[in-house]
Amino acid sequence: MKINSEEKKIPIYLKIYEDLKNKIEKNEYPENSKLPSIRQLALKYKLNNITIMKAFTLLEKEGYIIKKRGIGIFVKSKESLFYNTPSNNLIETFKVGQLKQNNLINFASGTPSEDVYPFQIFKKLYSDVLEEYGPKIMLYHPTQGLEELREVLKKNIEDKGIFVSKDEIQITSGSQQGLDLILKTLSSKRKNKIIVGNPTYHGALNTFKTNCKIYPVEMEEDGFNLTQLEKILSEEKITFIYATMDFSCPTGVSWSEEKKQKLILLAKKYNTLIVEDDFASELSFYNTPRTSIKSLDSDNKTVIYIKSFSKIIMPGLRLAYMIAPTELISKIVTVKFTTDISTSALDQKVLANFLKGNFLKLHIENLIKIYRERYLVLTEKLKEIPFLDVVYNIDGGFYVWIKLNDTIDSSQFYLKCKENNILLLSGNVFFLDNQKNQYFRVRFATTDIPEIIDGIDRLKVIQR
Amino acid sequence: MKINSEEKKIPIYLKIYEDLKNKIEKNEYPENSKLPSIRQLALKYKLNNITIMKAFTLLEKEGYIIKKRGIGIFVKSKESLFYNTPSNNLIETFKVGQLKQNNLINFASGTPSEDVYPFQIFKKLYSDVLEEYGPKIMLYHPTQGLEELREVLKKNIEDKGIFVSKDEIQITSGSQQGLDLILKTLSSKRKNKIIVGNPTYHGALNTFKTNCKIYPVEMEEDGFNLTQLEKILSEEKITFIYATMDFSCPTGVSWSEEKKQKLILLAKKYNTLIVEDDFASELSFYNTPRTSIKSLDSDNKTVIYIKSFSKIIMPGLRLAYMIAPTELISKIVTVKFTTDISTSALDQKVLANFLKGNFLKLHIENLIKIYRERYLVLTEKLKEIPFLDVVYNIDGGFYVWIKLNDTIDSSQFYLKCKENNILLLSGNVFFLDNQKNQYFRVRFATTDIPEIIDGIDRLKVIQR
Repeated sequence: MKINSEEKKIPIYLKIYEDLKNKIEKNEYPENSKLPSIRQLALKYKLNNITIMKAFTLLEKEGYIIKKRGIGIFVKSKESLFYNTPSNNLIETFKVGQLKQNNLINFASGTPSEDVYPFQIFKKLYSDVLEEYGPKIMLYHPTQGLEELREVLKKNIEDKGIFVSKDEIQITSGSQQGLDLILKTLSSKRKNKIIVGNPTYHGALNTFKTNCKIYPVEMEEDGFNLTQLEKILSEEKITFIYATMDFSCPTGVSWSEEKKQKLILLAKKYNTLIVEDDFASELSFYNTPRTSIKSLDSDNKTVIYIKSFSKIIMPGLRLAYMIAPTELISKIVTVKFTTDISTSALDQKVLANFLKGNFLKLHIENLIKIYRERYLVLTEKLKEIPFLDVVYNIDGGFYVWIKLNDTIDSSQFYLKCKENNILLLSGNVFFLDNQKNQYFRVRFATTDIPEIIDGIDRLKVIQR
Repeated sequence: MKINSEEKKIPIYLKIYEDLKNKIEKNEYPENSKLPSIRQLALKYKLNNITIMKAFTLLEKEGYIIKKRGIGIFVKSKESLFYNTPSNNLIETFKVGQLKQNNLINFASGTPSEDVYPFQIFKKLYSDVLEEYGPKIMLYHPTQGLEELREVLKKNIEDKGIFVSKDEIQITSGSQQGLDLILKTLSSKRKNKIIVGNPTYHGALNTFKTNCKIYPVEMEEDGFNLTQLEKILSEEKITFIYATMDFSCPTGVSWSEEKKQKLILLAKKYNTLIVEDDFASELSFYNTPRTSIKSLDSDNKTVIYIKSFSKIIMPGLRLAYMIAPTELISKIVTVKFTTDISTSALDQKVLANFLKGNFLKLHIENLIKIYRERYLVLTEKLKEIPFLDVVYNIDGGFYVWIKLNDTIDSSQFYLKCKENNILLLSGNVFFLDNQKNQYFRVRFATTDIPEIIDGIDRLKVIQR
């Protein structure tokens, strides 16, 4: 049903959902008030109970209402919508994107929009692989990943100055699984101690929060504050430093070459690891070559490199890989086995053929053109808004980090955006203390140019 | 390369691999001796270094040789081959199956053979789903799993007397992930305490070993020894009891109805959980209806039910699901999110259509016919061997548990089987103490009837 929701004929329960949602947002049903019962609404709309129930289920999922068993159905308070737990908040941002709502401008979603996917090529490749390999593709396949895929990844990564053996590569079901495997592999009786930038990618932050001690280091325009970093390294036995070199989440900035060099020296000096999370280093607007910090790790002892394909190909593919020091990799393979045995060989084979066919390069060129144009339009349009500033100029990726004037109440602003069907991600989720602040992340992976223009025009009038 | 290895033209490196393997097995290269260098062998065979290296890589993977950096390549000792660490041993049994060797009778593999897969239907369904849904199928999709799939699973499971809401179902990337999510969800500061049958499924055992305290209970012909079970429950706060009700690994036996009733009462009395691992309850040779212990858990508070599709459909599909008590399920969803965000929507959608099309029922009927026939032939043939006994008669599944006479040395027997290209799984891997014993598991999911006959005929003469 969800998948079909953009068809012209909108199911009745979705109309009811929209109607009730509007009434909640316009305060016709105020916060914490009890809603009419399913039977009452079924009578009112002249529909059956099941249709109303379906609309309620969706409203509940979207965080508008809450069912209290035996008492009734209530409108959720807006505070709880805004300040719900980080991980629910996070799961929500991944959920959006699926049920594309009319008139919604989504600057929050972690999902690149499907109109830029190289889908037709993949469709063909799936069909070819199934035809060519037959049922064998559905056997168990090696836990470390198909040799053929690791071979082509090894070759491709040489372009980035990373020279490793295919035996140092582990295929994972998405980069999130890479983090999960690393945490399990490095876990010991004492809690893992992890250094992150502040702000940093909320997905990683929430994962680390579950059972690690986190040490935040200020993230500056050109990378971490290295004085802070060295102080922590000299005082604590750190398990690893988590960082993204290029177009990092949420600020969009990249590390300078100088700071990269210093970072790897510090890590080696204090005998710790770096986990490099590379989700978009290819998306350099002006083809400036990017240096992976893995390429500076000449003895392959310090950097675990995680490469996601979710943002540069398609998230639903659920494929990523990582390169790890030789001593770690066999342990990682064992951990992968107890985690989920292995990743789909069909998907791996399709990706291998996609890479061999050199389709990725063409696709990246296309993505860069699209994202660069969106970025230029977005930043031009944002200049028209007097009560906020773009914090950094970026030269790749898809994040713009904005800051509201101190005169603006950020919670009010967020809620007004939501009322006007504009989704932004509040900056607080990216900081360790999760405190309310004036920052927002504006992402333009999901929004096309007309939506960007429309969205910013709507933002302009919000404060009036 | 691996996938293609059954082509008629055998690559040269495989021939070299075979030749070296034979020399090792015939003691031309004795245990712990140093092998000639790659260069020496390249000269000898008149081949290039890379071909020799490839053969060495395979020999190393198969456990015949070990590379010692800077010193040379050595023949591994046979003891280490037989008694290597449980998890490597386990990973090996999943690897076999892929590189199908000439003349090998594989009674060990965990991989159902591909000739019984409903592959043609899946091929069609993949193509249909890609055509019908387009790029949307490659978006992020809900962490809990596609609603449509959970809906059809909910309906199907009612046939087993299990009545739950689709919101109590979590889709997982294989049943191994189900175990991983449960362990993470239930983890606390103290080690989890888990009761298992002795013997039990080695995959679960190895997963639990990594960070749980394990309490073994004797596995009898009709289920656990309940006196032992209650003693442990009364003395320890157990996190959960792990059990398979039907055709359980490795003995093939099923729980009696009486013991199931007692098990659920004991679990409720001592306020603990049961993890029911159902991988093959459908494969009842004589259509005797099987009662899931989940169906006895009327308030949905005690049993976490894990359903694998690897054995009854195809392992490469990497899909399973679990049903968990309401209080646990939202925590499980959060844990799934930090583990790998979500499972492939394409695979889920294809499985949903497979189930809706009622293909599973037909496929199961076909499997039962195949496995019942294999079972009957296997047990008849085994009667011809004087030095071993079939321990239990089974009425479903694909495991036969055999015991050697005490006069036979089991390690010698295992190695002789291996020399004669017959793979069995040594019983020790299924017991908590991993001690050498006279048991072996004979599995007939990978072997067709001619292979079964050939394999047992070869076994017969082994002791001469």
